[in-house]
Amino acid sequence: MTERSSQEPGPAPRRRGRPARRTAEAGPGARERILASARGEFAEHGFDKVSVRAIARGAGVDAALVHHYFGTKEQVFVAAIEGAMAPVLSVPDLVGTAAPDAVGQVITRRFLEVWEGPATREPVLAIVRSAVNNERAAAVFRGLLTRSLLSRVAARIQGPDAELRVGLAAAQLVGAALLRHVIRLEPVASEPLEGVIARLAPVVQHHLTGPGPQDEPGSVHHSDPLSGS
Amino acid sequence: MTERSSQEPGPAPRRRGRPARRTAEAGPGARERILASARGEFAEHGFDKVSVRAIARGAGVDAALVHHYFGTKEQVFVAAIEGAMAPVLSVPDLVGTAAPDAVGQVITRRFLEVWEGPATREPVLAIVRSAVNNERAAAVFRGLLTRSLLSRVAARIQGPDAELRVGLAAAQLVGAALLRHVIRLEPVASEPLEGVIARLAPVVQHHLTGPGPQDEPGSVHHSDPLSGS
Repeated sequence: MTERSSQEPGPAPRRRGRPARRTAEAGPGARERILASARGEFAEHGFDKVSVRAIARGAGVDAALVHHYFGTKEQVFVAAIEGAMAPVLSVPDLVGTAAPDAVGQVITRRFLEVWEGPATREPVLAIVRSAVNNERAAAVFRGLLTRSLLSRVAARIQGPDAELRVGLAAAQLVGAALLRHVIRLEPVASEPLEGVIARLAPVVQHHLTGPGPQDEPGSVHHSDPLSGS
Repeated sequence: MTERSSQEPGPAPRRRGRPARRTAEAGPGARERILASARGEFAEHGFDKVSVRAIARGAGVDAALVHHYFGTKEQVFVAAIEGAMAPVLSVPDLVGTAAPDAVGQVITRRFLEVWEGPATREPVLAIVRSAVNNERAAAVFRGLLTRSLLSRVAARIQGPDAELRVGLAAAQLVGAALLRHVIRLEPVASEPLEGVIARLAPVVQHHLTGPGPQDEPGSVHHSDPLSGS
């Protein structure tokens, strides 16, 4: 900025495809402001209706700068998702350090805690909303979940069906978050968090490390097939 | 129509708030056409953006006729939901006739089968989309689920925590349907239906009739707490 002012007394002429001046003006916080704006836009309007221009406007920068940092709208969405999902995406690391018989507990607690507070819930919920409404957003979300979460947890679980097990455990947790925080179905919505964790952790543990259907012939007619009686 | 034609040779003058002529014109299929139009509109645009006028246009009737049959937009939504959810809403009847130790199997199969075919899946998915996006639609959906499904299944299950148990079983199924059919997360999406049922039925059965957390002291440190070992 100081260099430029000596050469160009008035506003600099805008040069297409070159956000360098704006980059300098926007300063070191620009990338974070763009991500925050993107998260807000995606949360409020959904993936479909958000434009790179609107994201740029919200961040007080030029649209070219958004492209400069992130590329396409999909790529801004991936970056916004990754930031919002950071607490969830750390689950594989937790699994690596937890005792094998405590992974259900550890995963269930971490996942549900993210949904308890509005500050961590809203960004994740915005992603889920976008993915439910839009196939391109669903594809981005799917890729991120597979690459950063399911494959990494599955790598730490025994057995050839590990990815299916992890997916069905995720289904239990995603469904619980949806009924508790979005549909707000009672009494799931009002049950204290510890009560929900106490009931879901054993189910998640079972999905990840319990006997599969082929290990339990005739299990359909037990009163609780998971109890092995 | 025949009575009117003798009195009024030309088109009848429209009378505000009286859809009687249109009712006659629309014929006995009008109610169904309105519901079909409503389902299509809600599926395509979501609860927010649908107007009674658009529903009427899709059905080839007057907006007054929609109000005449259903009342408000919320009430059209309820009626559209009830039709679309009919296969799911019959679950409590199934539970009443199934052996107590087979309810997990029966509920899981019925619920997931609804999601397998596009004809039964799309209307339910449209409702879920609306409910995820809009608080008024969520409230309608919540009321219907509670009244017609959860309370009735819970009434057939033992214990003071029956509604919570049914809600968490529903969470497992809703989450599985979402990951399989909306996010299309692999390998959950491609697993044959029978494989998914074989894995989820025992979990649903456990939620409904298995031991609760207070029955399993120290269960956190069992390798599969549900196995009762």
